[in-house]
Amino acid sequence: MYSSDVQKALDSAGAKPGDRVRVSKDAAAFEGILLPRPEIGDPNCLVLKLASGYNVGVEFKSAKVERLGDGVKLESFPLGKLKPNPKLPAISLIATGGTIASRLDYVTGGVKMAMTPEEITFAVPELSERVNVSGVVQLSNLASEDMGFRNWQAMAEQAARELNSGAEGCVILHGTDTMHYSSAALSFMLLNLTKPVVFVGAQRSSDRGSSDAFMNILCAASLAGKGDFAEVGICMHAEESDSHCHFLRGTKARKMHTSRRDAFRPINDAPLARVFPDGRIEDFGSHRTRSGGEVEVNAKFEPRVALVKAYPSSLPDLLQFYIQKGFRGIVIEGTGLGHVPTQTEDQKDSWIPAIREADAQGIVVAVTSQCVYGRVSPYVYRNLRVLKNAGAVHCEDMLSETAYVKLGWLLGNHSPEEAKKMMPANLAGEISARDTRGEFLA
Amino acid sequence: MYSSDVQKALDSAGAKPGDRVRVSKDAAAFEGILLPRPEIGDPNCLVLKLASGYNVGVEFKSAKVERLGDGVKLESFPLGKLKPNPKLPAISLIATGGTIASRLDYVTGGVKMAMTPEEITFAVPELSERVNVSGVVQLSNLASEDMGFRNWQAMAEQAARELNSGAEGCVILHGTDTMHYSSAALSFMLLNLTKPVVFVGAQRSSDRGSSDAFMNILCAASLAGKGDFAEVGICMHAEESDSHCHFLRGTKARKMHTSRRDAFRPINDAPLARVFPDGRIEDFGSHRTRSGGEVEVNAKFEPRVALVKAYPSSLPDLLQFYIQKGFRGIVIEGTGLGHVPTQTEDQKDSWIPAIREADAQGIVVAVTSQCVYGRVSPYVYRNLRVLKNAGAVHCEDMLSETAYVKLGWLLGNHSPEEAKKMMPANLAGEISARDTRGEFLA
Repeated sequence: MYSSDVQKALDSAGAKPGDRVRVSKDAAAFEGILLPRPEIGDPNCLVLKLASGYNVGVEFKSAKVERLGDGVKLESFPLGKLKPNPKLPAISLIATGGTIASRLDYVTGGVKMAMTPEEITFAVPELSERVNVSGVVQLSNLASEDMGFRNWQAMAEQAARELNSGAEGCVILHGTDTMHYSSAALSFMLLNLTKPVVFVGAQRSSDRGSSDAFMNILCAASLAGKGDFAEVGICMHAEESDSHCHFLRGTKARKMHTSRRDAFRPINDAPLARVFPDGRIEDFGSHRTRSGGEVEVNAKFEPRVALVKAYPSSLPDLLQFYIQKGFRGIVIEGTGLGHVPTQTEDQKDSWIPAIREADAQGIVVAVTSQCVYGRVSPYVYRNLRVLKNAGAVHCEDMLSETAYVKLGWLLGNHSPEEAKKMMPANLAGEISARDTRGEFLA
Repeated sequence: MYSSDVQKALDSAGAKPGDRVRVSKDAAAFEGILLPRPEIGDPNCLVLKLASGYNVGVEFKSAKVERLGDGVKLESFPLGKLKPNPKLPAISLIATGGTIASRLDYVTGGVKMAMTPEEITFAVPELSERVNVSGVVQLSNLASEDMGFRNWQAMAEQAARELNSGAEGCVILHGTDTMHYSSAALSFMLLNLTKPVVFVGAQRSSDRGSSDAFMNILCAASLAGKGDFAEVGICMHAEESDSHCHFLRGTKARKMHTSRRDAFRPINDAPLARVFPDGRIEDFGSHRTRSGGEVEVNAKFEPRVALVKAYPSSLPDLLQFYIQKGFRGIVIEGTGLGHVPTQTEDQKDSWIPAIREADAQGIVVAVTSQCVYGRVSPYVYRNLRVLKNAGAVHCEDMLSETAYVKLGWLLGNHSPEEAKKMMPANLAGEISARDTRGEFLA
């Protein structure tokens, strides 16, 4: 629903969604079809579909609304069938839910997701100049905080199916909160990947009427259609402005801000590419490129893996809890170079005995850093060597989130001994061999 | 110990620590007293004390060593008593351990900490031009991963004692890993603060012979001596180069890199000041300034508080574990705007029932974001409102680490009802009222 102020102005102009209207504000005026307010969006922003096909959001404050005439029946949108352009590559869309799904849903006012190629193309008209959307599959309609490993498995299976049935690439619409966990999961689960799998979402931008969803999906589709990548990655705004998107490696990205459009950042890594809204791709190299053959899936996952933070006065009882619950892996987000409370004054608080016990029981204990940036080490300080000797394995410059996903995937497929050996080895770009300290806060 | 290559060169030159030596390398040559290698440092780096009093580290590779003659007996360092300069402000040093302590310990080779004003001033000669070190108190010799709330209490008590006995400011030497937890703790525990309390440490820099310890402690001492601040903060390198330090608010700083010198960053905040090695302070305003009266301490702390991360497929059993252990507070580092698994397909995995139960039992459940940057909200999405209605309180733009410390401090002093009300209210600069999105990754 629009706010009561907006609704009052619409009522007095006799205008309702679907009508052709003119909205004047300051020196500017927009003419187009009045759309219902999307469920997530500023209720004080009028949304119009312009003759060009673009949507525009106009902040209502001090704006004037006139009804120009009948527009269209919203229920009949979009009209007709899309004719594929034989010159453009075909891509598949997999929808899972999240803000981007509701953002795309200008037509129905958020009651249902845009779920056909026609509906998607109606929402983002420029898509038809870049790609043929050959299929849209809705796997779920979940906010990303509600997604878990079963969703990762379904996404991996579906992405492989799409890529093996002729799509040049695959775009996955996903909520942003846990997108980097999902992109890490698919990075491990998809084997012999020959084409791009591009995660895309939308950050809510409470400060603006317009949304980042449209540019993000356009860039993601360009990448999936013609980008010379055989990687799982994330395509989101690179800056607060609408200049371009970044394509980030699926195992090296992290949501670093709760609300900014450019929240996703490469951690201990450089972006793989810049993608511009006009379709240009600036490729930074150092990634796998397209090739032939069938994409394979290994989606087995051991959910009895925990991600635990170590902090001052934190108790090792937590490790005992997971040991007793029969967990098979624990990722500890340690402090600094990968520390846990070790030589505490109160020896009861040291984590070392519990880690030794976990290791003796065949539970893999992996260590990352809560610093987010940088590399852990089992050597620099004595306490680090104590931790290593207790059986823990330090995970180089791997993200905590990626380490959690990787350990679950490894334990779904390998023995604890093998998993422990593979944690600090690079499988899917999750560990940088080179020095990435120059990419701090980039 | 120096590396065997270095030791061989020293042996063949007949030089031992304490001797006067010349080290030539490429076009440069250094003359000074050979110091023992500090315990933490590059074993391939020769460390000399120059006639100026400065220490220099010279990478041994291709260097030539000559013995020039007898130097000093290391055991008799430093010589004589320091005479205070009546024109300079008096500061107190509180040592707790960490890399900075061992870095300062060039003389004894790491066997003992530099623990008198004379020893500290010997290690950092420029100090005597800035301040009078009126006292050095060693509270502990702990790596920061081994510090807990009892150490915070001891530091707060000691800092108040020093400030109330005439010191113009107080410098706390601290390991870096958990320094921001400690600075947050003292921000809450010190009441009616009238002078600066400055945390300082050293990042190990494996890539260089020199250390950041000396510049950091010099800048921290300048701040404590003459900075017009009545704040608890962190003074560390602002850049990888030795250009200047930043003074960061104690409740708004975080170690963001495992090894870089400029690892400490202001989060959702601007630095309070720039501090230059020559003693200049560039004050950015918006902080409390020096005033009169006694500093008070309220160091009561409830340790039955946990910091827990929410992530895909994470189980609410963890909350049950803390409820059954009689914990009185739980900080959940949620995803995005402050989410937990809510409407999961498998309803057993939803965190909401356990949060409702915790709340019913008078356990305070506070929510922050694992994004690190940005603000959480209980309103934007339906799932956020569900979490709020279950009893959780979202903590604005507060850091997870600060929220953990704050909740323990509040529950040490207030009823759960009061603590819950005070969590989202600003007490010690931990919540920014203004929009700080422009300070992302600064």
